Amino acid sequence: MRIRPVKIDTFRENIIFLRKDSEFCRTQGVSSLTKVELSYNGKTLVGLLNAVDEPFLAKGEVGLCEYAFEKFDLPAGTEVKIRHMDPVRSVDLVRKKIHGEILDEDDYLQIIKDVVENRYSKVELTAFVVACAQGPMERDEVVYLAKAMVDVGDKIKWDSEMVVDKHCIGGIPGNRTTMIVVPIVAAYGLIIPKTSSRSITSPAGTADTMDVLCNVNVKLEEMKSIVAKEKGCLVWGGAFSLAPADDIIISVERPLSIDAQGQMVASILSKKKAAGSTHILIDIPVGKSAKVTSPLQASQLKKLFEYVASKMGLFVDVIITDGSEPIGNGIGPLLEVIDVMKVLKMENDAPKDLLEKGVELAGRIIEFDPKVKGGEGRAIAEGILKSGKAYEKMLSIIEAQGKKPEKKLGKLTLEVTSHKNGRIVEFDNKKIATCAKLAGAPEDQGAGIYILKKIGEKVKKDEPYMIIYAEEQADFDYAKEYLEKHREMVVIE
Amino acid sequence: MRIRPVKIDTFRENIIFLRKDSEFCRTQGVSSLTKVELSYNGKTLVGLLNAVDEPFLAKGEVGLCEYAFEKFDLPAGTEVKIRHMDPVRSVDLVRKKIHGEILDEDDYLQIIKDVVENRYSKVELTAFVVACAQGPMERDEVVYLAKAMVDVGDKIKWDSEMVVDKHCIGGIPGNRTTMIVVPIVAAYGLIIPKTSSRSITSPAGTADTMDVLCNVNVKLEEMKSIVAKEKGCLVWGGAFSLAPADDIIISVERPLSIDAQGQMVASILSKKKAAGSTHILIDIPVGKSAKVTSPLQASQLKKLFEYVASKMGLFVDVIITDGSEPIGNGIGPLLEVIDVMKVLKMENDAPKDLLEKGVELAGRIIEFDPKVKGGEGRAIAEGILKSGKAYEKMLSIIEAQGKKPEKKLGKLTLEVTSHKNGRIVEFDNKKIATCAKLAGAPEDQGAGIYILKKIGEKVKKDEPYMIIYAEEQADFDYAKEYLEKHREMVVIE
Repeated sequence: MRIRPVKIDTFRENIIFLRKDSEFCRTQGVSSLTKVELSYNGKTLVGLLNAVDEPFLAKGEVGLCEYAFEKFDLPAGTEVKIRHMDPVRSVDLVRKKIHGEILDEDDYLQIIKDVVENRYSKVELTAFVVACAQGPMERDEVVYLAKAMVDVGDKIKWDSEMVVDKHCIGGIPGNRTTMIVVPIVAAYGLIIPKTSSRSITSPAGTADTMDVLCNVNVKLEEMKSIVAKEKGCLVWGGAFSLAPADDIIISVERPLSIDAQGQMVASILSKKKAAGSTHILIDIPVGKSAKVTSPLQASQLKKLFEYVASKMGLFVDVIITDGSEPIGNGIGPLLEVIDVMKVLKMENDAPKDLLEKGVELAGRIIEFDPKVKGGEGRAIAEGILKSGKAYEKMLSIIEAQGKKPEKKLGKLTLEVTSHKNGRIVEFDNKKIATCAKLAGAPEDQGAGIYILKKIGEKVKKDEPYMIIYAEEQADFDYAKEYLEKHREMVVIE
Repeated sequence: MRIRPVKIDTFRENIIFLRKDSEFCRTQGVSSLTKVELSYNGKTLVGLLNAVDEPFLAKGEVGLCEYAFEKFDLPAGTEVKIRHMDPVRSVDLVRKKIHGEILDEDDYLQIIKDVVENRYSKVELTAFVVACAQGPMERDEVVYLAKAMVDVGDKIKWDSEMVVDKHCIGGIPGNRTTMIVVPIVAAYGLIIPKTSSRSITSPAGTADTMDVLCNVNVKLEEMKSIVAKEKGCLVWGGAFSLAPADDIIISVERPLSIDAQGQMVASILSKKKAAGSTHILIDIPVGKSAKVTSPLQASQLKKLFEYVASKMGLFVDVIITDGSEPIGNGIGPLLEVIDVMKVLKMENDAPKDLLEKGVELAGRIIEFDPKVKGGEGRAIAEGILKSGKAYEKMLSIIEAQGKKPEKKLGKLTLEVTSHKNGRIVEFDNKKIATCAKLAGAPEDQGAGIYILKKIGEKVKKDEPYMIIYAEEQADFDYAKEYLEKHREMVVIE
């Protein structure tokens, strides 16, 4: 059979198309749940078979969806062998997990290996994710899962003994501290090769925000040379094959909006380990509408991070922060860039909370340096920021990654005004995020929300307390409609 | 947009294909996880969007996979509207279930409604199935699930106050008692309109076996007129839309081989309720390699059946039977037909265990008749069998459903002989079933295994104790290879 790409986007599921009248389908009694293995010179690809009766496949052709064709990485027309895939043994382990059993180190390795080789269908993958999400995972199981995720992917090696990193578990709009922490820490002199994700469900990820300023799609060698020169970088992690199982797992977690503690910890720490980090600051925001809603839950999560990290040979410092409202004023890529640049330039109207948090986190990371005493980090970080060295460092990093032309904010704007005299008492982070997304963020870089008043601030009747920005009329209308239905996203009393 | 069928078999998932360069894909920022809703004159269809860049779709066309096209039931070329599907609210309930919460009656109804309307992707469906399989469902939750499954499908009404039925939870090869019970009970005079499934993972379902003798794909009105005349029938249940959610749920349970108690009970009782049955005999075989492996587990399952049935207004009698070895000698459609016909004709070499069990079950069903005293049913059933009336009834039912020409056994045969003098002490039901399936059952009706010696019987060195039948050389070779690797499927000591 000759392979050919079929340009159907199946979102990370290997689909293999065969004609219904092909010899394979006729003689092998194929149902549409059949998984097949294609092979060529020892290279194999497995996928779910879809039998087709459409003229797009010629006789003797086997079609590969875009994702599978890229994975297989062979030219169209390559003659391959096709056969039934052997049963995926590790699915038996998933079944054990569903029935409440505890799996061991080798079990997790087998499962994750099969996941990365795309031997799992979406159904099996979901079963694994839900089984791990429902019954709490033993903390050693989280270690096994994290180690397995590191083992099956690429690993980055650095020449330095200490490579620092930070991670926020997310859920707070704005909160673009990474872009303040990295230039401060790099200016101090620690190695901080930051890889970030794009937004999964939020109005902007750090990679989306940095993308406004410069190129973030950087190859490994390029990143290494940037870090050699600048000590730090701010690139998109998706370009590397670090803990690739995680991306596949996310492809089912995302539509389900599941974010189980065990999987989250394994996901974060495996990516950091694979990226070669040694010392990591973890930020857990706590608030009514944050991912973590109670101090008790935050404390449990902190201990889990600490336990798993120690077993993986990672040093972590876990910090629990205020997640009651957005951090900074801007929500959306360009709006967040504006905030970050104001902080780095120490402008008078720079958002105080973002500045304070950025300095605090940078200080904690600087304290990873054995030369720095506990409690001294903050002052050092503040000094670097005030000296303008952090801003200079940011400009150098932007230049090194490849500066982009300046962007403009969305032209469609709505000033949201208060219905009464009062005081801002509460934000619903999730609803604020949804509204900013409906306005077009992060795809439209100039879209989002700019907050004018934060918790505790007074607001007069008819005074605006936030502004919605959009680039497209349809998005603008969606956001306005959502706002009208959910005015409680900002509570004024 | 004009609809057109796309002949790709996606196995019970609605996939909707749109060109990447279509206005919808360009303006709506569609990812491949997007669900869309098509509508025409108030009729709607929802499905997962796959963006395509293949010439099979013309501009202005929206492609529907075979399954979706059939569901939508509109002619090709119909102009439909397309829009983003509203979020499926009941997925929030699934998320609650994943987090261990107990759902109420309305929650289950919402979930099952959305499932039947194909609003769930495979990922969401699997999440629901696994969440219900992992945490034990409260018994009231099973009631809610079962009731919801009845509510969303068709229901058959009968003119009789008592409509009897039987169901075996499965797992025992052979065990074709239904084809003995139905003619006895119908000859006695009770209404027993038996709908059966085809094999899901076994070498033969009752529908597959009956299919050797006559047509089983019978429409509702036809079935009613057969039952009016014969009191009973033996048809394929898949032709009706009874508890259709169950079929969709099975499409993910099957590849996972999950068979959780709660879902099983809800699935069985909802199908029976929808089919209009009032009195049901449930057969739970217990054995080391059966579905239920311990008497305690059987007793728990029995109580769950009883509880849920009572809440649904069904009368059940649950019988726990011996599941240590296959029932009857034949395994595979035609081989099982041969056994059944020998029993109905009371031939001397009829398998005793199948005869005994058939009579026992028929007797228990006859005792549903208020006129029959407890304990009298068995003798009545035996009398009907011995009189030849059951055989006559079977012939009438076959005639009424549409008799088929006689089939022949597979020509490729292997006598499996003993390596030593000894006695049969154990069967592995699962391995025996796998071997029969590899030989070609149930697709090849003449394929399977015929058992010559059962537990307790002596066997001499080189004496055959079973025969493998196959129609195709490749299947024959698979079965032989499997046998050599798994001789322990029959233990001789």
